[in-house]
Amino acid sequence: MDHAADPSHPRYRSLLMRHRLEIAAKKGMLADSALIAHGRGEAYDYLIGEQTIESADFATKVALRCLKEAKHPVLSLNGNVVALAGDEMLQLADLLDCPVEVNIFYRTPERMTALLSDLDERNKRLGLGVEILGANPDAEIPGLKGPRAKCESKGILQSDVLLVPLEDGDRCQALVAMGKTVIVIDLNPLSRSSQTGTITIVNEVTRCIAEMVDGFDSDLPSRSDYVHEETLQAALDSIINGMKDRFKTVE
Amino acid sequence: MDHAADPSHPRYRSLLMRHRLEIAAKKGMLADSALIAHGRGEAYDYLIGEQTIESADFATKVALRCLKEAKHPVLSLNGNVVALAGDEMLQLADLLDCPVEVNIFYRTPERMTALLSDLDERNKRLGLGVEILGANPDAEIPGLKGPRAKCESKGILQSDVLLVPLEDGDRCQALVAMGKTVIVIDLNPLSRSSQTGTITIVNEVTRCIAEMVDGFDSDLPSRSDYVHEETLQAALDSIINGMKDRFKTVE
Repeated sequence: MDHAADPSHPRYRSLLMRHRLEIAAKKGMLADSALIAHGRGEAYDYLIGEQTIESADFATKVALRCLKEAKHPVLSLNGNVVALAGDEMLQLADLLDCPVEVNIFYRTPERMTALLSDLDERNKRLGLGVEILGANPDAEIPGLKGPRAKCESKGILQSDVLLVPLEDGDRCQALVAMGKTVIVIDLNPLSRSSQTGTITIVNEVTRCIAEMVDGFDSDLPSRSDYVHEETLQAALDSIINGMKDRFKTVE
Repeated sequence: MDHAADPSHPRYRSLLMRHRLEIAAKKGMLADSALIAHGRGEAYDYLIGEQTIESADFATKVALRCLKEAKHPVLSLNGNVVALAGDEMLQLADLLDCPVEVNIFYRTPERMTALLSDLDERNKRLGLGVEILGANPDAEIPGLKGPRAKCESKGILQSDVLLVPLEDGDRCQALVAMGKTVIVIDLNPLSRSSQTGTITIVNEVTRCIAEMVDGFDSDLPSRSDYVHEETLQAALDSIINGMKDRFKTVE
């Protein structure tokens, strides 16, 4: 982590995120596939210019309004989300006055304990009193098998608007099938989660949540102005624009 | 690794590669950043359709001809390359009757030992007698600092044609500056290595090397038919084609 301490370094943010994952890995918070998944995200983030593209900014604002207007908003957290944006997620939950729920695909008691205790520490350090769910799953997401179906009845099960950053495609689909408004944050506009979500934000999770927190009290567009397919195609088009005619070719 | 044993599974190859990395990680062969780098590769491989695109096939054939016509060809191996394509690299070196050299960016004695002994085992298992260099660095690549500059005088230093899969940008540049023909294998057509290399093959390393081995005795195009910028733009265009008009948008 040569450069992680120097914010002026061009790779500072990228190195900082890796550093957060290293710490989380040491605490036992991550699945085996976590670093590979993060690398995939890095590639897509690079292709959108490591910035919030216009279509994502709009989707973020629509999503924030849905969360603010929800009866039972819940923020779902997995290992990478806690590692990368644990503080930001708690700050957003505090503003929304809603719970977060730890909801991981490869659920083991050890990982659940590591994640819940990491969130507890963050909650205290930030001086927040956010309700942290996930320790006592008493319900299941219909259509999923095994431990990945587990959730809490007062959390994900009863939620009407659910924020699921970096979610698995199967689970995203199962949550949409429950009739919930599912807000996906995913850097790959072609992923199954991105396509399946009700509202999809193609952005890096930490950047996105920080922007929700910063813009919490700003004017927000209404959900009827969001067009899902246009949002996804706009993300693809932004990648395409960075790739067109990059190299001079001989005529 | 639920599905790694079933070749008919659509994600078989991807899971097999992850499995190879897991084993290598346990043996101490990989740098901390290896899995993240692999994830970035996965993303680009997905975008080119997890196949050898036409421009990469052509570049592969040109590169193979350069290697066959070289006076001192050398195949450079880092941790991920040994993990993913160690057998294939030794098979190619055997056909070319040339040495491989372990040449890693984050050089530690432990990683060097792990990589050299893994290659020794592979060499024996395959019944090959490929010369494996890297244990006794007695030279430096000019323009690089620290352990990452180390190399062997009878290997990389004297090579005229050098194959460097998954190479770091700085080192690729330093090798080109030495006047060598540097053949890069990299899934990101925009990476510094891809741009800096003499010949760049935008393909997954295992797929690429297996194709060199299979096509070793086929007719091969000459180097003068290779146009570097066209090859890179063709790879970008192949990604673009998979992204255009993917989603129907409202007019």
